[in-house]
Amino acid sequence: MPSTTAKTPDVSRRSERSRKAILRASMELVGEVGYTKLTIEAIAARAGVGKQTIYRWWPSKAAVLLDAFTEVVRSEDYQAGIPDTGDIEADLKTVLRATADEFSDAAFEAPYRALAVASAADAELAEQFVRRLQEPGLEVYIARLRAGQQAGQIDPDLDLRLATEVLLGPFQQRWLNRSGPLTHEFADRLVEMALRAFAPRA
Amino acid sequence: MPSTTAKTPDVSRRSERSRKAILRASMELVGEVGYTKLTIEAIAARAGVGKQTIYRWWPSKAAVLLDAFTEVVRSEDYQAGIPDTGDIEADLKTVLRATADEFSDAAFEAPYRALAVASAADAELAEQFVRRLQEPGLEVYIARLRAGQQAGQIDPDLDLRLATEVLLGPFQQRWLNRSGPLTHEFADRLVEMALRAFAPRA
Repeated sequence: MPSTTAKTPDVSRRSERSRKAILRASMELVGEVGYTKLTIEAIAARAGVGKQTIYRWWPSKAAVLLDAFTEVVRSEDYQAGIPDTGDIEADLKTVLRATADEFSDAAFEAPYRALAVASAADAELAEQFVRRLQEPGLEVYIARLRAGQQAGQIDPDLDLRLATEVLLGPFQQRWLNRSGPLTHEFADRLVEMALRAFAPRA
Repeated sequence: MPSTTAKTPDVSRRSERSRKAILRASMELVGEVGYTKLTIEAIAARAGVGKQTIYRWWPSKAAVLLDAFTEVVRSEDYQAGIPDTGDIEADLKTVLRATADEFSDAAFEAPYRALAVASAADAELAEQFVRRLQEPGLEVYIARLRAGQQAGQIDPDLDLRLATEVLLGPFQQRWLNRSGPLTHEFADRLVEMALRAFAPRA
């Protein structure tokens, strides 16, 4: 039973390769067939592993997808946070424009929508979705706004948590409801309006 | 075949009674069993009508639910719009607190969540969801903000459409993601922060 032997470097490498193949396959497939029709069997086939390998590591397809997106959140880009050029308006526009581009890319958007929909319908999944994906996303904005406070560009008494919701809630609403285009123009106007609320009181 | 005869007052009254019973049954049932398990058969049984009556009037369970919520949107309360006491901050807090109460009521929240989730997963349904439910909701806010512009309390150059998204997007995000409590406190802080963005420029 290779899976229970002490891990040699080779086994570890093979496991990590399988894990990454499974996560990648889950993202691809949910984009192609939707969350409802996504199956562990299909993920296994696409990843070139046995389905028992998946069941050994994850309890459900939702858990696989959550891990796939958690990898994205942990990736270099996200860890680097929001740039701080000293110009908070420009920096927030840069990152919100990039987010708009990301949500216009079906390879990202389709699986993320599937996960958001599944979470909205399931309180337990929602708790993990928020803790593992949404909160780390808000944290990078909070860090940038805090730097803005130190630079005197943001009200020192601002509720930074609520501020990030004011900045990102309208984006999520447009996206989930498909109620308007996620353009650079929208990103810019949203940042400008939010910063009027965040500015130091005159 | 009574359904194809010219409508006498009696038939009309009976039809209207059946229609209302069907809409009410759909709201109750989706709250009890969820959208996935909701069936036309169960709605018909609860409403005391034959399922053919439902199929004659609606193409799908989503269509029934959409009509049920459209009734709510068309109800007196909504048609009256947001109160205008002359104090825009107080008026927006009143209505957003009432909305928070509404979303804390499972009889409203569960079926509305089911519809929002179904819409997020289905672009065609989303188009109707936005046009028939979200847009009329935004319009009453836009009307109140416009009155605020005329009263000199709101920036005359403000993009009122984007402003309503800034006010309501954070509310929807918290609600759908269950990422925070929908309290009167939250409603008040959100209105206060949004109004800082909406105020006339100094």
